[in-house]
Amino acid sequence: MPSLAIHRLPMAHPGDLSALERLIADGRLCAGTVCAVIGKTEGNGGLNDFTRGFFTQSLMLLLGRSTGEDPAALAARIPCVLSGGTEGALSPHYMVFTVEPAETGETGLALGTAFSPPTTARDIGRASQIDAVEAAVRVAMAQAGIARVQDVALVQVKAPCAQAPDAAARSRDPRVLMALSRAAAAFGVGVALGDIASESATEDALLRDLSLYSDRASISSGIEVVCNEVIVFGRAKGWSAGLTIGVAPMRDLLDLEGVIAAFRSAGLAAAPSVPPAQRGRVLGVIAKGEPDTSGAIRGARHTMLGDTDLDAQRHLRGALGAIVAAVAGDGRVFVSGGAEHQGPPGGGLCCVFARN
Amino acid sequence: MPSLAIHRLPMAHPGDLSALERLIADGRLCAGTVCAVIGKTEGNGGLNDFTRGFFTQSLMLLLGRSTGEDPAALAARIPCVLSGGTEGALSPHYMVFTVEPAETGETGLALGTAFSPPTTARDIGRASQIDAVEAAVRVAMAQAGIARVQDVALVQVKAPCAQAPDAAARSRDPRVLMALSRAAAAFGVGVALGDIASESATEDALLRDLSLYSDRASISSGIEVVCNEVIVFGRAKGWSAGLTIGVAPMRDLLDLEGVIAAFRSAGLAAAPSVPPAQRGRVLGVIAKGEPDTSGAIRGARHTMLGDTDLDAQRHLRGALGAIVAAVAGDGRVFVSGGAEHQGPPGGGLCCVFARN
Amino acid sequence: MPSLAIHRLPMAHPGDLSALERLIADGRLCAGTVCAVIGKTEGNGGLNDFTRGFFTQSLMLLLGRSTGEDPAALAARIPCVLSGGTEGALSPHYMVFTVEPAETGETGLALGTAFSPPTTARDIGRASQIDAVEAAVRVAMAQAGIARVQDVALVQVKAPCAQAPDAAARSRDPRVLMALSRAAAAFGVGVALGDIASESATEDALLRDLSLYSDRASISSGIEVVCNEVIVFGRAKGWSAGLTIGVAPMRDLLDLEGVIAAFRSAGLAAAPSVPPAQRGRVLGVIAKGEPDTSGAIRGARHTMLGDTDLDAQRHLRGALGAIVAAVAGDGRVFVSGGAEHQGPPGGGLCCVFARN
Amino acid sequence: MPSLAIHRLPMAHPGDLSALERLIADGRLCAGTVCAVIGKTEGNGGLNDFTRGFFTQSLMLLLGRSTGEDPAALAARIPCVLSGGTEGALSPHYMVFTVEPAETGETGLALGTAFSPPTTARDIGRASQIDAVEAAVRVAMAQAGIARVQDVALVQVKAPCAQAPDAAARSRDPRVLMALSRAAAAFGVGVALGDIASESATEDALLRDLSLYSDRASISSGIEVVCNEVIVFGRAKGWSAGLTIGVAPMRDLLDLEGVIAAFRSAGLAAAPSVPPAQRGRVLGVIAKGEPDTSGAIRGARHTMLGDTDLDAQRHLRGALGAIVAAVAGDGRVFVSGGAEHQGPPGGGLCCVFARN
Repeated sequence: MPSLAIHRLPMAHPGDLSALERLIADGRLCAGTVCAVIGKTEGNGGLNDFTRGFFTQSLMLLLGRSTGEDPAALAARIPCVLSGGTEGALSPHYMVFTVEPAETGETGLALGTAFSPPTTARDIGRASQIDAVEAAVRVAMAQAGIARVQDVALVQVKAPCAQAPDAAARSRDPRVLMALSRAAAAFGVGVALGDIASESATEDALLRDLSLYSDRASISSGIEVVCNEVIVFGRAKGWSAGLTIGVAPMRDLLDLEGVIAAFRSAGLAAAPSVPPAQRGRVLGVIAKGEPDTSGAIRGARHTMLGDTDLDAQRHLRGALGAIVAAVAGDGRVFVSGGAEHQGPPGGGLCCVFARN
Repeated sequence: MPSLAIHRLPMAHPGDLSALERLIADGRLCAGTVCAVIGKTEGNGGLNDFTRGFFTQSLMLLLGRSTGEDPAALAARIPCVLSGGTEGALSPHYMVFTVEPAETGETGLALGTAFSPPTTARDIGRASQIDAVEAAVRVAMAQAGIARVQDVALVQVKAPCAQAPDAAARSRDPRVLMALSRAAAAFGVGVALGDIASESATEDALLRDLSLYSDRASISSGIEVVCNEVIVFGRAKGWSAGLTIGVAPMRDLLDLEGVIAAFRSAGLAAAPSVPPAQRGRVLGVIAKGEPDTSGAIRGARHTMLGDTDLDAQRHLRGALGAIVAAVAGDGRVFVSGGAEHQGPPGGGLCCVFARN
Repeated sequence: MPSLAIHRLPMAHPGDLSALERLIADGRLCAGTVCAVIGKTEGNGGLNDFTRGFFTQSLMLLLGRSTGEDPAALAARIPCVLSGGTEGALSPHYMVFTVEPAETGETGLALGTAFSPPTTARDIGRASQIDAVEAAVRVAMAQAGIARVQDVALVQVKAPCAQAPDAAARSRDPRVLMALSRAAAAFGVGVALGDIASESATEDALLRDLSLYSDRASISSGIEVVCNEVIVFGRAKGWSAGLTIGVAPMRDLLDLEGVIAAFRSAGLAAAPSVPPAQRGRVLGVIAKGEPDTSGAIRGARHTMLGDTDLDAQRHLRGALGAIVAAVAGDGRVFVSGGAEHQGPPGGGLCCVFARN
Repeated sequence: MPSLAIHRLPMAHPGDLSALERLIADGRLCAGTVCAVIGKTEGNGGLNDFTRGFFTQSLMLLLGRSTGEDPAALAARIPCVLSGGTEGALSPHYMVFTVEPAETGETGLALGTAFSPPTTARDIGRASQIDAVEAAVRVAMAQAGIARVQDVALVQVKAPCAQAPDAAARSRDPRVLMALSRAAAAFGVGVALGDIASESATEDALLRDLSLYSDRASISSGIEVVCNEVIVFGRAKGWSAGLTIGVAPMRDLLDLEGVIAAFRSAGLAAAPSVPPAQRGRVLGVIAKGEPDTSGAIRGARHTMLGDTDLDAQRHLRGALGAIVAAVAGDGRVFVSGGAEHQGPPGGGLCCVFARN
């Protein structure tokens, strides 16, 4: 079975795939082995963030040129999870996950992917989306060869959002619709992993019952995808042993200890920051969080939710990203706001990919 | 000689002084002893941030009612250093510094204040402003009874900016003018403290020769003041011994170790965050930083300087504030961007007031 | 009975009342005759716009100094309707309405004011707010001596919004709460004037049944007021005859003819813009509008509602304000977004005060 | 000689070329005849606006598929002038200009295009850029068959801007660099058309001597182009007679009469807005303007230049766009801010393409 590699690459702008192009040209990466991409572009991360679509189009063009496949077919097969917003210390970058066939008896970091059927505006935030994501998670687990839910470390989903107002949608407010899409996908992940009881995971509970969550779910939503694109990470037999993943929950936005725990669980001696000699072993960092909806963090009022000029998620990413980047010693962190049902209210998670 | 106390108080909005009003009403704080205020309001921190003026007006009204003095006279005597912008994890708050006469042979945290003469638009970023700030620092040191420059821990300045375009100003771009004002004030502090050689501190070197800096200078600029308002903190004989100040430089925005060092030098066991049992000893935190003008942090491109929608200083405060707040375990941090000549390029400083 | 005067004054910043101070000092305006103020400050017009509170505090301080009355008592008596946001061509300014007793048999522009009882977060967007505004409109009409609803030209209301999240509020989204407050106030005005049937004006219909509206209602909401502050304009006997008011509906945002009609109905020869010789006769301009919630204007998609970086109301004010200012030949226009139930969906109104 | 056609098409998002794709598929437009595209995308219009690059990439892909040519070769031949920012009433759209060979003895609307050599960061705002644009204008005029400068109606240029900081650039502030690029291109156009004397058009005069301008120049700058891309419109013999162009200057932002004059000079009975029956004859509208750098319009202070949260050009486009759209009765207007040397200070121009 297979061998996973992760390449973390810089971009000069959202349409710049030159770093990947060079790897392919140099024979250091075979375009046909790319099975997932997770990236952070410098858009605003909201409904009108087109940097994600620009990147995806550019990526699929490059892979199409390199493999001879149709870019549209590639886009329908390779999850491309992009989150806009590199506020503050964050740096635009993308992680390319490749899988090469290899016979091994080892147990190691495994990856599986799946696409749900297309989700229309009227399905967003409905039971049908929850079910579709749950099913896709199971397919991706099977592909990865992960049999037990406790062996899943993280499920990363890119969930769709409607581009145009649709009378049949659950909300006419696009911000709400994006949140509903993330929430439904989190429910789907939670049910598939047994973190949320199936009977609790109802439409009505979305964005309401904040006691329901999976702290192994990381969801972004955006208008540039039409399906729920799912990537499952975990441990499985038959995968080569060189890579590891560490995941830890964050209780709240200031949970520095939670961030450090994630790095340590990936085998890095963060004390508090990753020592320079170990920084090269970090292959990717993912963090999720959200502005505490109580309006306060540890009793002190925050102003993220009532700012007319600066979107709450931009506030959040700048803050969370800086804390994680300070521990990593590196601004190349995938930070995504909107952690509905993806951890305790006001909290989130941190996930680290590293070389052993 | 005197006894210094620091009260850190929340505000519900920029005109809300009710927390201070209650302290005065309860007899826990004597309005006549207030000698400086440093606060963080939830504006945008830019030229059109009027939350600072609103707070100052409200503060002086309250002190006027309590002391019988004219609010205008109070405003001309009590430095009120406000910085707008509580992005991300930050929380609006203000620190009230009071000094009560007391005979003591101890050595402790000392404070002195001074106002320069009014600085007009044409003087901003000129040699005259540098000289005026230098002189004010010396006056404030003398008031504090600090004889030696090495005993100064931090000089906090609120420097003026022109409200209306002025043909005689050094720049017509208000962002540049605000930066020039901070830079000139930093030069004034640096010369007074011996951190910058007098002959190097020329008009031409402002914003140009980035090798010139004082990492004991913390400068904000804004249209709500007309003078350079100066507060000097340090150690001096005759001040009561209960309070301490810790200051440490930050090499760059991700310098988590620098932040921790500041807390430790104030006697707190930050490891990496201040333990809950010690958080009550923290009386105030000040941090300065700036978006690295090279466009990268530790080699990774950042996007703070080219964002049309989100001002670079808002980016910066959200990131720096979160790192410092994560160590403090508390969002009540005074973070101010625009650290020109106030530390190494791309870096800054962190300062902690604490009870022993 | 009384004589009404309108003074339109510039401000250099939201705390600048110097133009009014000069009028009072010169004896050209008696502070005791001020009965309402309507103004446009340069904030963002949203929940975190504190320019309105700053202006109001500064105004009441000035009037308090001039009249010897307590500023708090003045604020509870004089409606001060401020709208933040001077995007594009707009210019910060305020209109001071004074009423002096005078015996006249003429019929002219009449003004009456009233305050509802305080409206808490839990009352916003509820039947109780609708009723309270309706009652206040009747009180204000009686004060103005306007007996018939058809003689009312415009009702301007400043409606409150909760500053802090409140579990009992109808919505936790502050944007929605501000909209609900405007909507409920519009219903109150509509019922009082007979433009909306009392039985249709239910809580449930707020923001839902867009066929219900009064095109004589102009509502702003904000956190700086705690009551619904109501100003009624119309024609009544006993008021001196020198001033006039022209009001016309706008069908949509591009309804240039509607804007021109308002100026013409105030006796000005707009063709299309007010000729320079007549511009001095214009004493004030009020416009309301809203981003068309269908997402298009005359079939062409607009992008106001899905912009993460620029609030829809800031988009709207910049556009509507420029059109009205181009006709007026003057940027001193009070433009307020959020025209829920204050005209046809996507439309609004324009109102002009002029000297005959 | 040739026959010019203009197709004005909507886009659902910046990568949506489906309207053009349909025209090509239906045989109503031959992809090989496309010679220029001018469009308005819904980005922020600033340095970090990637909607322009996304559109261009998508356009060239479509044209490449349709013609069999390499997209890169098409991009090097077909000027694609995009301006980001559809604030307020504006609607995202693009104009496709096609030229088909046809023998005619008529005189009509003529179009010519040219590309300068690549302009690096160090050349932006230098004499070399001025010269390069001047030369390109002459080439484009020759291509159009326009012999006399007085027969040129408008020159539209897309000028490059550096993407990354470059030590050799005239400014490190990307806003300034974008302005310098527009200014230099305007000088190049002005010199080529005889509107600016060659000896006055120096590097030093850029952004300084505002008395130098061409009110037939319309310049956008952006990082998505590397050359100065030039489109010249005018009247020439041998072009079919069905289309016309009307251009008129605007004295200031509120110059409603100037806008109306442009429509009238294109043969439309704007009174003040274009009557519904004539709206179908409008094929495209271009407007340029700028925030008055004096800080006031007709004596009333504006706030466009000092707003930390909302870029001055976004302010400007929302205001100017609404005025032009109100006259056109249609939000599909290409509005571009930054009118340095493209009209009198604080003013601009309006240009209308129409069917006779």
